Amino acid sequence: MTTLPDLTISSLSTAYQAGELTPSSLVKLLHAKLTALEPSAVWIHLLSESELLDYARELETKDPADLPLYGVPFAIKDNIDLADAPTTAACPDFKYFAKESAFVVEQLIAAGAIPIGKTNLDQFATGLVGVRSPYGVPENACVPEYIPGGSSSGSAIAVAKGLVSFSLGTDTAGSGRVPASLNNIVGHKPTKGLLSCTGVIPACKSLDCVSIFANNAVDAQKVYDVASKFDPADPYAVENKLLPEAAPLGALGSTFRFGVPHASQLDFFGNEEAELLFFNTVRKLEAMGGEKHTIDFSPFLDAALLLYEGPWVAERYVAIEDIIQKNPEILHPVTRSIIAGGENLTAADAFKAEYKLKSLKRIADETIARVDFILTPTIGTCYTREEVEANPVELNSNLGYYTNFMNLLDFSATAFPAGFYKNKMPFGVTAFAPAFHDAKLLDLATKFMEDAPCISHDCSEVPAGWNPIVVCG
Amino acid sequence: MTTLPDLTISSLSTAYQAGELTPSSLVKLLHAKLTALEPSAVWIHLLSESELLDYARELETKDPADLPLYGVPFAIKDNIDLADAPTTAACPDFKYFAKESAFVVEQLIAAGAIPIGKTNLDQFATGLVGVRSPYGVPENACVPEYIPGGSSSGSAIAVAKGLVSFSLGTDTAGSGRVPASLNNIVGHKPTKGLLSCTGVIPACKSLDCVSIFANNAVDAQKVYDVASKFDPADPYAVENKLLPEAAPLGALGSTFRFGVPHASQLDFFGNEEAELLFFNTVRKLEAMGGEKHTIDFSPFLDAALLLYEGPWVAERYVAIEDIIQKNPEILHPVTRSIIAGGENLTAADAFKAEYKLKSLKRIADETIARVDFILTPTIGTCYTREEVEANPVELNSNLGYYTNFMNLLDFSATAFPAGFYKNKMPFGVTAFAPAFHDAKLLDLATKFMEDAPCISHDCSEVPAGWNPIVVCG
Repeated sequence: MTTLPDLTISSLSTAYQAGELTPSSLVKLLHAKLTALEPSAVWIHLLSESELLDYARELETKDPADLPLYGVPFAIKDNIDLADAPTTAACPDFKYFAKESAFVVEQLIAAGAIPIGKTNLDQFATGLVGVRSPYGVPENACVPEYIPGGSSSGSAIAVAKGLVSFSLGTDTAGSGRVPASLNNIVGHKPTKGLLSCTGVIPACKSLDCVSIFANNAVDAQKVYDVASKFDPADPYAVENKLLPEAAPLGALGSTFRFGVPHASQLDFFGNEEAELLFFNTVRKLEAMGGEKHTIDFSPFLDAALLLYEGPWVAERYVAIEDIIQKNPEILHPVTRSIIAGGENLTAADAFKAEYKLKSLKRIADETIARVDFILTPTIGTCYTREEVEANPVELNSNLGYYTNFMNLLDFSATAFPAGFYKNKMPFGVTAFAPAFHDAKLLDLATKFMEDAPCISHDCSEVPAGWNPIVVCG
Repeated sequence: MTTLPDLTISSLSTAYQAGELTPSSLVKLLHAKLTALEPSAVWIHLLSESELLDYARELETKDPADLPLYGVPFAIKDNIDLADAPTTAACPDFKYFAKESAFVVEQLIAAGAIPIGKTNLDQFATGLVGVRSPYGVPENACVPEYIPGGSSSGSAIAVAKGLVSFSLGTDTAGSGRVPASLNNIVGHKPTKGLLSCTGVIPACKSLDCVSIFANNAVDAQKVYDVASKFDPADPYAVENKLLPEAAPLGALGSTFRFGVPHASQLDFFGNEEAELLFFNTVRKLEAMGGEKHTIDFSPFLDAALLLYEGPWVAERYVAIEDIIQKNPEILHPVTRSIIAGGENLTAADAFKAEYKLKSLKRIADETIARVDFILTPTIGTCYTREEVEANPVELNSNLGYYTNFMNLLDFSATAFPAGFYKNKMPFGVTAFAPAFHDAKLLDLATKFMEDAPCISHDCSEVPAGWNPIVVCG
């Protein structure tokens, strides 16, 4: 084999088990391709061919049928440790060599996955834009003029460009969903605590999640199954719960209930095409057997506002207090100005925000209990790099409109592709549900992507003049 | 009937159902006794005879067999609302008339219980001593020179002196357990959120619990069954969970496992008699079928320290921020000095303490999972009013050694009598277990109190020269 094979987990598994592919041959092809592409700003650190071959040869002593992720290449956001590799969090002067892999990385490697490298991000995972890094701006996988989205920019693009089968991101305020939407892939934000944060640099420690990017939800589910092992060493880890209401929905065509925010509470930031694409997705879900319920979205939006106006930025401050106090000049200026604001908040502010959040969570929980999941756009609109450069904070904030509340309210969420704009930029939606509904959401995304034939999942193949309403209405 | 009958719930129930007693006759006797005793500093507000008769006559239209607490008199700590009565939180200038009863009071009245009055407390429920109130110091029910314990001083003493069948306290750091121990009664600190806090003045809103005082654990269980109704209007309320491991222990003599802190981690503050009494209690539990396991108590003690050194005092500040800013002079000087300290804590402090607490909780949970419950003294020693007057903050702090961690770590706890000092002061222990173990703990206390015949539960009848080791060893 001389060209890179299809990196879908099932294709790789078939090829390995049939003896058509070996981990060594795959990593050689992959390493050649990746080094040819560099510098791309996707990677902060790539493993050498010899390091990759070490992983490959170790696997070749084992039976492909025994390991669920045998020989599957993956990328790691550079705020998550990989043993014997540098971690930077996109801050070069912060760099250290990790002695051990993060718990979640260990599980993936033990299941046969091969780490390829560490990916670029908005520094210290602060941002939803993907342009706040001294390592450059990774190119959007669909339309280069657009931002990649962040903070897990490199991890999303490594998947979207077919360089790895899946990748790990982190998602505190939307960093695992926004770049999925902007690059036409699946981004799963697991229930808080199901994926260990041991070996992950905290952003907001009480809210952080490790997240999963993949080209389809079947692969995301396979990774989730391996990665979601309980880690008693992570104080924020939780044991998975099997809730009857979190079982996957029935077959396509059977009925289910989904919530959609009241029209007045949806914000597309002036992008009419996004609005059409969203309601087009709603109609597709109805065609799949879904019963739409309009919900009051205000408790969710109020919680999202709390993240910006509330005390949680103090957690980002705590995470890098030493740097802010001793070497603030090593930080990206936007990152520094945001995080420094965390120093002056009071404990009284923190408790008041917690009380407010508790009240909102009660209402939000009652709302979400009436449906199987709630559907929103993942982001209300897309921005170009130029637009974000001109208005870096407000546009970043707009991108979090549908994502910021998720971890505050302790929900699980899957972002998945749902169409294209005329300019070939992808459009994506997010289905979210209470904690421990991960498998249900991933199954829904799988069914939706199978059942939406008018949507290409490869943005290089969007039909010219594709019009969501005419084609899919 | 011309003398007050036995106020045990089962005795009252039998008398009502046999037609030997009516609510009207009971409240008349009770009102006469209570007014004869006043001023006692136990009550801040007593209902008038005519108000009590209104409750009684309403009950007399119903069948005693239909209501679990038919005609059972109870007292309410004066930081919990009773409709049409004043609430002061022991701060006269804060007084307001409540329009509605607290949710938990409503449940008790609906089940037939009759509210008798509002009881004295350490102002704004801040303290474990019971002497920080402008309404005076309620007299200890066993030895008058000793402090009553707080903050729920009046509620504990109303029960201990046989003025009511049960009472409501609140317990944030130990206020429902310390005065139970000092007055020889049962104090149950329910799982956080099982008893609604709607209509309760917050102390530390994220930690507050309504608690139950009774003369025995059977009565406490009956009250708990009625009071622990889920209140969707309280954002901190939780639904009860039936956990298999929380089922009551088997019959006496069957085996169970209980944890006891390592001897070096027990602190009796120099009181050797307390130490003898505690190990005497341990031996009694062993005689009942218990298998003692020495545990490392350090994560519990470290969590307790966090309550004092950490950010939670900022919650007390938030609760009365208006008063501190506008009318600080209306506060008790000790209360004011403690709570004012909450103003200057930062949100960063709050999050750091939360991280530390999360780590400690993981270890504490692992420890407690190995046993059915952990046993400690409720307080390490007893103090006289004179001693506390001379050293008001340190001695208060000593009283919280075994209680402060309980709500931070989200455990359920029952404090119950376990003997007497030579000077007739009572000694008490606390059994604690994870959240939702309430019924198991109350059942244990019931069995212990039945099975410890050498312990009188009436401190007026302690045998002279009673020596715990000789009599019960």
